[in-house]
Amino acid sequence: MIGEHSSKQYDNELEAIRSKVLLMGGIVETQFLDAMTCFRIGNSERADRVMREDDAVNQLEVSLDDACSHLIVRRQPAANDLRTIMATIKVITDLERIGDEATKIARVAKALHGRGAVTVNHYEMVRGIANNTSDMLHDALDAFARNDGKQALQLIAQDAVIDHEFRSIMRNLITFMMEDPRTISAALDTLWVAKAIERIGDHAKNIAEYVIYVVEGKDIRHTKTTAPVLEDEPEQAK
Amino acid sequence: MIGEHSSKQYDNELEAIRSKVLLMGGIVETQFLDAMTCFRIGNSERADRVMREDDAVNQLEVSLDDACSHLIVRRQPAANDLRTIMATIKVITDLERIGDEATKIARVAKALHGRGAVTVNHYEMVRGIANNTSDMLHDALDAFARNDGKQALQLIAQDAVIDHEFRSIMRNLITFMMEDPRTISAALDTLWVAKAIERIGDHAKNIAEYVIYVVEGKDIRHTKTTAPVLEDEPEQAK
Repeated sequence: MIGEHSSKQYDNELEAIRSKVLLMGGIVETQFLDAMTCFRIGNSERADRVMREDDAVNQLEVSLDDACSHLIVRRQPAANDLRTIMATIKVITDLERIGDEATKIARVAKALHGRGAVTVNHYEMVRGIANNTSDMLHDALDAFARNDGKQALQLIAQDAVIDHEFRSIMRNLITFMMEDPRTISAALDTLWVAKAIERIGDHAKNIAEYVIYVVEGKDIRHTKTTAPVLEDEPEQAK
Repeated sequence: MIGEHSSKQYDNELEAIRSKVLLMGGIVETQFLDAMTCFRIGNSERADRVMREDDAVNQLEVSLDDACSHLIVRRQPAANDLRTIMATIKVITDLERIGDEATKIARVAKALHGRGAVTVNHYEMVRGIANNTSDMLHDALDAFARNDGKQALQLIAQDAVIDHEFRSIMRNLITFMMEDPRTISAALDTLWVAKAIERIGDHAKNIAEYVIYVVEGKDIRHTKTTAPVLEDEPEQAK
């Protein structure tokens, strides 16, 4: 009975950590959406909010890492349970990096609008990749919440689509820059925004891989499943 | 006596893991140097070697994560010892990402030389940041090997210098592109190389932070020490 009690305690504590991770996920999702709105319509207050939220995200990272360590020391989990905690620790790192990328987008957007340099076209160029990445992030958090390995597996292929979109945006921007060198500076800002979005897609893919690690019990990082054909193309300007 | 024996066993196993992490560190250091040589003189065989080594690095990541989990389950470490393992798990992630960035540089370099587009100037533009980052990575691994918190602390300031160098390179490249739009494509390739180097600097900083976490027992991520003044500037094209 003591063992059962202790295991129930463990489950409760783990669930509390997982809830907080999902809270953190919700914050970075909102950061990303706000940052994109900022890039679209220019709203420096909203950009400031994205940057402020980043402090909350950073603090959550530190306190959640700490909670995971405490859980391990106090409850001494078996291999199976430890796998969940390990994956959670990795997910936390990815969420924090997503917050960083959203903050970068907000900074670029604020600076760009501050200079009055934005045209609607720049937002239009990244609208598709932003929507796809936002969906992917949402689904990855959903798969994490529900421990849904099947959904997670579908997401991994999605990342190749986002990488492909990124390269296509880069080619378009190069064309613009060549046609009118005065647009180079603003085009590069758009390129950094696209790059940050593409990174958010990478992190969402990582989260999906950790969900699979927990559910299936196998580490699929760096296997064929995780290295779609498109990823092998060099990241370069043509 | 049994406790002592078990603790010695634990120490031995932890030391074995740390040695392997340092081996992994040595590989990614070499990858980075080889990738830069490739960018400088163009050597597609060497670029291929960097990409091949990436498989070895990826396999090391998976097997080291696994070894850390096993160590925790078998030895059930106390809070203090767990801190070292946790930091090691995070360092492994950063090393794997450094390998990824070096691989990106090798790919860009190979493609660039394949098109015969490289001029010496492009390498000269990133020579400084590459040397500084290479030193920083070497010192971070050294601090990790010797658990040297003091050396690690010095490295954190170094990252701000690298970020500053990156922004200066970006401004120079924008000038080149504006003066001669035909250079845009090659200039962007150089920009990606500079960006990858700057990221390697970020990862070296992360490693330094984990060394401090182990030695000092406190988490200095997201504190003033880790956020030097320069880092707050928006990453944007002026």
